[in-house]
Amino acid sequence: MEERLRFLVLNGPSINLLGEREPEIYGTLTLANLEDLCRAWGEERNIEIRCAQSNHEGELVDILQEARHEVDGVVLNAAAYTHTSAVLRDCIAAIQPPVIEVHISNTAKREAFRSRSYLTAVAAGLVMGFGIHGYILALEGLLEMTGGSRIHRKKNS
Amino acid sequence: MEERLRFLVLNGPSINLLGEREPEIYGTLTLANLEDLCRAWGEERNIEIRCAQSNHEGELVDILQEARHEVDGVVLNAAAYTHTSAVLRDCIAAIQPPVIEVHISNTAKREAFRSRSYLTAVAAGLVMGFGIHGYILALEGLLEMTGGSRIHRKKNS
Amino acid sequence: MEERLRFLVLNGPSINLLGEREPEIYGTLTLANLEDLCRAWGEERNIEIRCAQSNHEGELVDILQEARHEVDGVVLNAAAYTHTSAVLRDCIAAIQPPVIEVHISNTAKREAFRSRSYLTAVAAGLVMGFGIHGYILALEGLLEMTGGSRIHRKKNS
Amino acid sequence: MEERLRFLVLNGPSINLLGEREPEIYGTLTLANLEDLCRAWGEERNIEIRCAQSNHEGELVDILQEARHEVDGVVLNAAAYTHTSAVLRDCIAAIQPPVIEVHISNTAKREAFRSRSYLTAVAAGLVMGFGIHGYILALEGLLEMTGGSRIHRKKNS
Amino acid sequence: MEERLRFLVLNGPSINLLGEREPEIYGTLTLANLEDLCRAWGEERNIEIRCAQSNHEGELVDILQEARHEVDGVVLNAAAYTHTSAVLRDCIAAIQPPVIEVHISNTAKREAFRSRSYLTAVAAGLVMGFGIHGYILALEGLLEMTGGSRIHRKKNS
Amino acid sequence: MEERLRFLVLNGPSINLLGEREPEIYGTLTLANLEDLCRAWGEERNIEIRCAQSNHEGELVDILQEARHEVDGVVLNAAAYTHTSAVLRDCIAAIQPPVIEVHISNTAKREAFRSRSYLTAVAAGLVMGFGIHGYILALEGLLEMTGGSRIHRKKNS
Amino acid sequence: MEERLRFLVLNGPSINLLGEREPEIYGTLTLANLEDLCRAWGEERNIEIRCAQSNHEGELVDILQEARHEVDGVVLNAAAYTHTSAVLRDCIAAIQPPVIEVHISNTAKREAFRSRSYLTAVAAGLVMGFGIHGYILALEGLLEMTGGSRIHRKKNS
Amino acid sequence: MEERLRFLVLNGPSINLLGEREPEIYGTLTLANLEDLCRAWGEERNIEIRCAQSNHEGELVDILQEARHEVDGVVLNAAAYTHTSAVLRDCIAAIQPPVIEVHISNTAKREAFRSRSYLTAVAAGLVMGFGIHGYILALEGLLEMTGGSRIHRKKNS
Amino acid sequence: MEERLRFLVLNGPSINLLGEREPEIYGTLTLANLEDLCRAWGEERNIEIRCAQSNHEGELVDILQEARHEVDGVVLNAAAYTHTSAVLRDCIAAIQPPVIEVHISNTAKREAFRSRSYLTAVAAGLVMGFGIHGYILALEGLLEMTGGSRIHRKKNS
Amino acid sequence: MEERLRFLVLNGPSINLLGEREPEIYGTLTLANLEDLCRAWGEERNIEIRCAQSNHEGELVDILQEARHEVDGVVLNAAAYTHTSAVLRDCIAAIQPPVIEVHISNTAKREAFRSRSYLTAVAAGLVMGFGIHGYILALEGLLEMTGGSRIHRKKNS
Amino acid sequence: MEERLRFLVLNGPSINLLGEREPEIYGTLTLANLEDLCRAWGEERNIEIRCAQSNHEGELVDILQEARHEVDGVVLNAAAYTHTSAVLRDCIAAIQPPVIEVHISNTAKREAFRSRSYLTAVAAGLVMGFGIHGYILALEGLLEMTGGSRIHRKKNS
Amino acid sequence: MEERLRFLVLNGPSINLLGEREPEIYGTLTLANLEDLCRAWGEERNIEIRCAQSNHEGELVDILQEARHEVDGVVLNAAAYTHTSAVLRDCIAAIQPPVIEVHISNTAKREAFRSRSYLTAVAAGLVMGFGIHGYILALEGLLEMTGGSRIHRKKNS
Repeated sequence: MEERLRFLVLNGPSINLLGEREPEIYGTLTLANLEDLCRAWGEERNIEIRCAQSNHEGELVDILQEARHEVDGVVLNAAAYTHTSAVLRDCIAAIQPPVIEVHISNTAKREAFRSRSYLTAVAAGLVMGFGIHGYILALEGLLEMTGGSRIHRKKNS
Repeated sequence: MEERLRFLVLNGPSINLLGEREPEIYGTLTLANLEDLCRAWGEERNIEIRCAQSNHEGELVDILQEARHEVDGVVLNAAAYTHTSAVLRDCIAAIQPPVIEVHISNTAKREAFRSRSYLTAVAAGLVMGFGIHGYILALEGLLEMTGGSRIHRKKNS
Repeated sequence: MEERLRFLVLNGPSINLLGEREPEIYGTLTLANLEDLCRAWGEERNIEIRCAQSNHEGELVDILQEARHEVDGVVLNAAAYTHTSAVLRDCIAAIQPPVIEVHISNTAKREAFRSRSYLTAVAAGLVMGFGIHGYILALEGLLEMTGGSRIHRKKNS
Repeated sequence: MEERLRFLVLNGPSINLLGEREPEIYGTLTLANLEDLCRAWGEERNIEIRCAQSNHEGELVDILQEARHEVDGVVLNAAAYTHTSAVLRDCIAAIQPPVIEVHISNTAKREAFRSRSYLTAVAAGLVMGFGIHGYILALEGLLEMTGGSRIHRKKNS
Repeated sequence: MEERLRFLVLNGPSINLLGEREPEIYGTLTLANLEDLCRAWGEERNIEIRCAQSNHEGELVDILQEARHEVDGVVLNAAAYTHTSAVLRDCIAAIQPPVIEVHISNTAKREAFRSRSYLTAVAAGLVMGFGIHGYILALEGLLEMTGGSRIHRKKNS
Repeated sequence: MEERLRFLVLNGPSINLLGEREPEIYGTLTLANLEDLCRAWGEERNIEIRCAQSNHEGELVDILQEARHEVDGVVLNAAAYTHTSAVLRDCIAAIQPPVIEVHISNTAKREAFRSRSYLTAVAAGLVMGFGIHGYILALEGLLEMTGGSRIHRKKNS
Repeated sequence: MEERLRFLVLNGPSINLLGEREPEIYGTLTLANLEDLCRAWGEERNIEIRCAQSNHEGELVDILQEARHEVDGVVLNAAAYTHTSAVLRDCIAAIQPPVIEVHISNTAKREAFRSRSYLTAVAAGLVMGFGIHGYILALEGLLEMTGGSRIHRKKNS
Repeated sequence: MEERLRFLVLNGPSINLLGEREPEIYGTLTLANLEDLCRAWGEERNIEIRCAQSNHEGELVDILQEARHEVDGVVLNAAAYTHTSAVLRDCIAAIQPPVIEVHISNTAKREAFRSRSYLTAVAAGLVMGFGIHGYILALEGLLEMTGGSRIHRKKNS
Repeated sequence: MEERLRFLVLNGPSINLLGEREPEIYGTLTLANLEDLCRAWGEERNIEIRCAQSNHEGELVDILQEARHEVDGVVLNAAAYTHTSAVLRDCIAAIQPPVIEVHISNTAKREAFRSRSYLTAVAAGLVMGFGIHGYILALEGLLEMTGGSRIHRKKNS
Repeated sequence: MEERLRFLVLNGPSINLLGEREPEIYGTLTLANLEDLCRAWGEERNIEIRCAQSNHEGELVDILQEARHEVDGVVLNAAAYTHTSAVLRDCIAAIQPPVIEVHISNTAKREAFRSRSYLTAVAAGLVMGFGIHGYILALEGLLEMTGGSRIHRKKNS
Repeated sequence: MEERLRFLVLNGPSINLLGEREPEIYGTLTLANLEDLCRAWGEERNIEIRCAQSNHEGELVDILQEARHEVDGVVLNAAAYTHTSAVLRDCIAAIQPPVIEVHISNTAKREAFRSRSYLTAVAAGLVMGFGIHGYILALEGLLEMTGGSRIHRKKNS
Repeated sequence: MEERLRFLVLNGPSINLLGEREPEIYGTLTLANLEDLCRAWGEERNIEIRCAQSNHEGELVDILQEARHEVDGVVLNAAAYTHTSAVLRDCIAAIQPPVIEVHISNTAKREAFRSRSYLTAVAAGLVMGFGIHGYILALEGLLEMTGGSRIHRKKNS
């Protein structure tokens, strides 16, 4: 019997304030709304969507490490860690499932320090500037990338 | 009667060599294949997809200017002009339809000069690293962005 | 009945070693002494002073997020995270209560990397170089800024 | 018999959108208005004003090269090519008639990349920030510079 | 009765050596000649031209501050202070009359440090490279800018 | 008999325009108001407050030099000289009374050149972003620093 | 009775994936193997080896702080935190036991950002490029440094 | 029957002004002379020399693309595009025939921006500073490189 | 009758505090001692030594301008203006008598910003690190340079 | 019969002054002591230790080249050539035996230019900050690296 | 009787390892082969070719100085000294015979530090990327440059 | 009996070409003339002047090392090694006699790379721009510095 694909949607620091924080930029949808949207997308396609959020760099690493034998791909919005975390970069490089980098807003319109991403060079793809809908585009890209089959997870894990 | 949406898929220098040039990076699909893929996507959704390619910076500007009252959105792969053309940036900023920046490969894995994009800060969104499929993700993002209706084209143009 | 103002005094990494670490620079007062000093200042003015310290970037973010509906202002010594944490910057920008950046020593006399602060541009004010007394100056500035009344906390939170 | 002076007013990329593009910055006058203004100035002084515009770097070079024996001076607004075109710089340096660099807006108020001009060092003069009227100031400066006589054009060209 | 327009022509350090200093670059006209030229231009148009020169950064600031209710516009050649004086920048930003930055020679042809101007971003316009005649172009630009009427001076000052 | 403490409040270029210049940033209080506020603070504590302002870098140095045997501490807002004056830095380093650097607004929110301070590394402390009230915080910090007694002035000076 | 020396071997983010992650670079030995190797080295010399690993910057700081009265020296492989953590630097500087920086691979052969270490300037020594064996070299260096006796730990701690 | 080798000599912007432009630097030979020289060299060796020149970046790309199945090697003097054209770089990398970069003058003696070449890293060789004769050296190098036989052209193209 | 040579010894900001300021660096000799030393040197050689000091950039310029027809050479210690004053540079370049740059201490041992001198490139010579005696070396160098005769002063000035 | 391993201990400029130069940094042991220490280490393990020192960049290259068929590994302290010698880098890359870079002091605590090493990227390992003992650690690392057998020397050389 | 032309072929550090070192890059020809090739070229044209190689910067200078009256031109491959030797630059600038810079490989494809050449700006020409054959191209360029006659050597030297 | 002072005048690369090389810059005096001048200066004062020159960095170090117990001071013109030799810097720092850095021309008027000196920060003084006479000024400074007595040489060396 063919097992379902599993994708992880992982959000970084202060994404839990979504809908509350600068709504003119980030909209009024909350993190719960966002995760529901992703799960709904998964249900339509019989794909399991796991969701997680943390403000801790180390916890994001822990989650990615634990997920490495559990999921077939990751959609990651590392928020500001994108610009400062060589540690996340090394973790992404060390695990097998492809990681898609997502940003809700267009970081190129913002402060200069946001033009540097530690993650893009090790990410499988990047989607930026589409608001919440970017997560869906990233999931679709991930689905295309994995060919719709569980190629990345080990049998016995 | 509701008019169809129209999107422009505009490709820059040497994308016409697709399929021939470094196939291990860019795959074996040609520009014609790519454009067919986009047109097929449009037909399924009753959206008109116009395609163009040029090696000339000025011609890309001409096409974008002419398209500004003709289409509801643009998917643009400016190739190497991405990193050198302030002129394209100003043109994108000057026209109304949203422009999605697309790159077939992940430019962050390549030479340092490719980490600078003149276009991202004025683009409505960015999709990178998904191969040819990135154009489809960009078109879907554009569709979401325009709300599926002809809001960007002037009546009488 | 008018509720008391509440301020949070939040200290970052290795401030818990105060009094032990390089006493010729930081003096012999401990973190407990510092917090007592702040609480005493609060008691004289009928202001509640909450104190916290953490070596974890993510925990500092958690505390600031939890405090955002609980306090009317924050005095933050982020220590070395000042120079590396875009995550703290985003968190400060995302919450409503004003945050005063404090440094015990004069960071401009030290290594070059300390001349960069991710936090100052989103802080409401900066006090630096006054030793432990700088916390009191920051609290007084905060009191002036909030006008002595609970304007920043939501009713029902 | 004394021949009339001839000046070229040459505009670069997207100046043809003048009046339509960001009117709060560039005003509502069109390129046609601008060229009429310049021609009117010329007619009052019995000076022939030739006008041209192109979005193409190479075409701007072609025009300048062709004009080198035809006109006594050039007013050039190279728009965004100002900041990226070493080719235009070399062309200006290679031809005899003096070239005045003009910018409608004050580029120093804009993005950092606009602070670099490839052209200024080889231009005979620079006029910036006066809106459309800057072209007239440039023409007057050119007239002063050429002493009101056809000193730069070859007899038999 | 309509009052006359008043413009200030303000020259910075070592411009008083004009005509004596490097005449192959700056010509043989003296500062007195330059000021006469400007005054003559004013007389033809019934505009009062006030002239001043100082080698002192602080004095240039004093003069601009005093002039802020007295004149309708300023033509300023700050000479080398252009490249080092954030103080002049702040003063120009703080006063109401528009300030036109003028340079006799083309600073882009000279040392690298001259490519930085503290003033341009707050100036209303820039004229460079036209020799002494640049002052007249600047005055004409100023006249156009102020619309030929005393709009910038307060009634009762 | 114990002599009174004496503090100097020294303001730099264009601070004399306070209340008039960009009131949305700097408020509507004038320099006179600011100095009265400081003097009132001093009178409550039997401390003599001397006030001075100059647009001249050299005069600020003269005043600091003359004050070096006359006062027990200095509150200095050097305005834009903060970012350009190595001369003020050397003067502060050369005199005995502690100097507190003050800025009314948060310079970290402004142009990049304002992120460099020549003065902070030789200042005894820094207070920034509290508006006019920052002067009072600086005076209080100075009072704490000098221990409330005339330790810095020489007997016979 | 003479107490045994105690050394801490502390590993940073993703070192727990050793043996699994890029084995062509890092070899097939696991973190457990590495820790056994270190403990075996200690047993031969009657030195207690404590081992710890964490992906969390704050936890690495917590461990170092707790160890400061417990151990006589530290061998630290901070992995990617080496290049981003000013917080670890301050912690190392604040504690008494000497810290030896270790890297398994030669970071100078890798990305440019790895050429910057926040830690080396406060480390007692650096060992790089010897693979797993580098930990043993570091321990031997530590033993030499501490002279084989418990000079760094306080009596009563 | 063995076909003749074919080389393309491609010149960039303003090389068509050769002989006229700054003859003290570039000599008095014209582009026609240069091309004759190259053709003469080819005739002696039974090699077909094709010549082209354009001021247009896009046209240079078009020509290189068209030539990719037509010629066995290219001698390219891209003039100022050398320093700004990532597009030419990508085109050279995308085509099979080796491209030799040539410069008539020694660009290292000129402005700093000329020290950057986008092309050298993808060129097969570089010849600089030998004047017109450098084209002959480049052709000889190309001949050596191709081994004197048509190894780079496809049979049926 | 042969007139005496005249040299100006000009000191910049805070040199008037010499002997008082950081005596471990600058020694205990005062500015008066220094000037006496220079005058004594002059008397032995029948050379008139004029001395001046100012904290004002503009005044230093005024003095140099006034001296340009009065003296045969200048020994200038511009102190911190050395590193910030493009204005002094232009003044030195504009006047005829040679200017020798002197520094009492070795500025290369101090802060990084002191490694930049605006003046050296236009100075006739530089003497640094010899303490007060450096002024004498500079005067001797000046004497050698002027050949011991009044070649630089105009007859009738 | 198994031949002995041979290691070269090569010291660069001014290491011959060891014990005499800045003993508070480098200790009182001389170069002879250091070499004896290394030889003693070798004798215990039946390894031949060859020692050499030179102040000449070219001679260090000569020695490394001659040693390339003679020894099984090199311990190199290139002293200040570490920061300036691309030539040594190329030589190390060109020879077969592994080279361990050693520094007696911790160069990261010193001037900024010492943070750049030309050698590390081509070295097999790096040991820094352990004083003289670092040479022993380097030899042990080399021994581990070569597996205790003569794998790097050619049979017949 | 007309004397023969004499050219010097001078090779720098580690070029003596040619054929042994990284043959996939540099080929299998040795330095002796290279020099034979050059001498054979000379014999065909009755030109004396002198060859030399050194690993020593100072020796390369000595050889160039000695050759300055002995030869009519130099072909110099300074290897890694190209990127670090201002001393070689000054020597080339100080001697009369033209020096052609040669590199066997294309340094633009390698580490960033190789993009800086101290020599190119004073070289008469540059040939790069043609392998061993580049020396022949350089000699031919030299022959063209010297016009085939002994114009650069002094009669009596 | 009082021994004579001994000074070393040490010249670096290509100073042996003095008088021959660019005489318009360096004059027509030769190195022998220069050394005679220095020796004559010494004879008048009963000071032994030793002279040496080398093109080799390592030899300059050897000479300085040997001289460290033999002379009381050094006048060093390291020529282009000034800008590249960290090795000379370390050698100067390691020896006791004071070293005066001399340059014949004013290096600040030349290429940008000459603005960096490795030596100045460890030199006792700097004399630049006085031509050959600068050596005499340096010797006089050295004499003043050593107080005219043999304080720097060891008795028994």
